[in-house]
Amino acid sequence: MNSKPKIGIIPGDPGGIGPEIIAKLISQENIRKKANILLIGDKHIFELGQKQASLEFQTQTIENHEVDWKIEDDILLYENETIKYSDISIAKISKENGHSSLSNLKLALDLAKNKTIDAILFGPFNKASLILAGMKFEDELHFIADYLKIKNYISELNTLDGIWTSRVSSHIPLKNVSKFINEERIVQAVDLIDKTLKMSGITRPKLAVAALNPHAGDNGNFGTEEIDIINPTIKKLKLKQINVDGPWPSDTVFLKAKNKEVDGIVTMYHDQGQIALKLMGFHKGVTVQGGIPFPITTPAHGTAFDIVGNGCAEIGAINAAFNIACDMTTTWEN
Amino acid sequence: MNSKPKIGIIPGDPGGIGPEIIAKLISQENIRKKANILLIGDKHIFELGQKQASLEFQTQTIENHEVDWKIEDDILLYENETIKYSDISIAKISKENGHSSLSNLKLALDLAKNKTIDAILFGPFNKASLILAGMKFEDELHFIADYLKIKNYISELNTLDGIWTSRVSSHIPLKNVSKFINEERIVQAVDLIDKTLKMSGITRPKLAVAALNPHAGDNGNFGTEEIDIINPTIKKLKLKQINVDGPWPSDTVFLKAKNKEVDGIVTMYHDQGQIALKLMGFHKGVTVQGGIPFPITTPAHGTAFDIVGNGCAEIGAINAAFNIACDMTTTWEN
Repeated sequence: MNSKPKIGIIPGDPGGIGPEIIAKLISQENIRKKANILLIGDKHIFELGQKQASLEFQTQTIENHEVDWKIEDDILLYENETIKYSDISIAKISKENGHSSLSNLKLALDLAKNKTIDAILFGPFNKASLILAGMKFEDELHFIADYLKIKNYISELNTLDGIWTSRVSSHIPLKNVSKFINEERIVQAVDLIDKTLKMSGITRPKLAVAALNPHAGDNGNFGTEEIDIINPTIKKLKLKQINVDGPWPSDTVFLKAKNKEVDGIVTMYHDQGQIALKLMGFHKGVTVQGGIPFPITTPAHGTAFDIVGNGCAEIGAINAAFNIACDMTTTWEN
Repeated sequence: MNSKPKIGIIPGDPGGIGPEIIAKLISQENIRKKANILLIGDKHIFELGQKQASLEFQTQTIENHEVDWKIEDDILLYENETIKYSDISIAKISKENGHSSLSNLKLALDLAKNKTIDAILFGPFNKASLILAGMKFEDELHFIADYLKIKNYISELNTLDGIWTSRVSSHIPLKNVSKFINEERIVQAVDLIDKTLKMSGITRPKLAVAALNPHAGDNGNFGTEEIDIINPTIKKLKLKQINVDGPWPSDTVFLKAKNKEVDGIVTMYHDQGQIALKLMGFHKGVTVQGGIPFPITTPAHGTAFDIVGNGCAEIGAINAAFNIACDMTTTWEN
């Protein structure tokens, strides 16, 4: 037994760039020193990734589903047969690819639940393929929460270069956003990012809450949610000793993050945070599935069908996702 | 007579950084070679700016309100008594400062209307001071339009490093944005940026329209304005030979601008464009008052009360605002 974090890695969509970036991730020497790695999925998918990346590494296939973490610095493979090699659709939406993605995800969730692994890192999924394969939720986070029967508040967290964001509302029409702005949801979004940042190793995270309206409502001239809801909620949160401030106009709050004046930003709607994060570094962003009882991270980018197989996929984001999974494991409290 | 553009410059709020940045602007040698300059306002305000900037330059006061552009490379001063020197409130909201701002603005508008000058460049106003002084509009653009009795579509345009944005909606509560998304307003916003970019010297501007909803509505799952309104309107605009495309998800459309794939972006709401532009370069952004019959430009930043008088105000934005005013003058068509 050793004390390194135990990270389970699944390829994501087998027809996307997941297999390639995972092969590149694993082949870096310091990765194995930092964590015990359990690849979960079809052996041929991981081999496909090595071919795409023009890299080769040995894996140790575990027998009888008994993971033995004694072997330091080996990469263990927990085989799962989800798709025939010839059935993989490269760079295409496909029911079979989606089925493979979901099967490996479920197995990884089982292994995290029974504490075989401490955290999950997954390659990008293709949402259309997941839906073809029967996923009945708006995104993988809601699928995960349903599979684990989680009832508490869940939300994607996005992070880039040490800047974190959480959202009060997410995948909904913009015209409905205002209806989602209430004390309960703001408190949940603040609590989630506060807790997650503490787990990522920051003792007392400094948080900024974005306003909903232009110029933060300009004293009520362009909207009153700041006065009626957001400001009073922030005051209550401060009384709970949370290091939070705002609401700040959304066109300047990200400058605070860029200047490292804050650790995390609570946004009111999807694009408010995403416009900023994608501009600050599309290739390096990481998504953390917030509200799940163990760390799950993934690159913020997608399957990138336009570049699958050409060997050029960048690994800034999956490296960052791996590091965050390791850091969160170390400080995790349930 | 000479053929250089004739630019009228007003200080904006006398208690903000306007006087200082105008002094710094004027003191650059190439400025006078590029344009004929008419300073409009109180002599002591322009002298205050020189003191704050630790710079000195000579001005030629014009007599009897008769501007003679024969004198090349001189800086002309059109005196206007709007405030006593001792009544200027430095770095403070003040009715007197607001009155001075509006008086100089009105005079500049008169001079542009009678073609004494071709364009106006103004230093930052303080909105609270303007309101104290009796401005009854949501912003200076609406004040200007009212003063000039303009009935056509008007909208702020924001620009930074060659990237331009216009807005379908502006200073309104976020919950009302969806009600402003209709064919007429989108056409007006596209036409305005198309026309303005042509005036700034781009023969056939390439335009991108941002979506309203997250993931551009995800095929109607997160909102239907893209399907019902934005997409059909773009198709109609293409038939009118406008080089426009979209709707693109708002968290990736700015990457197109950053990569210089497009010249202008039409945004659906205030913060959609402002989050991106301010992140890309807070100190260099320029605002153009769109829909006015002559060019009016200003730095996108405000009065910056926190740094007034310390001599450190940056001039990237006012330099850019000056250059855009000159460029637009050259290609202006009514």
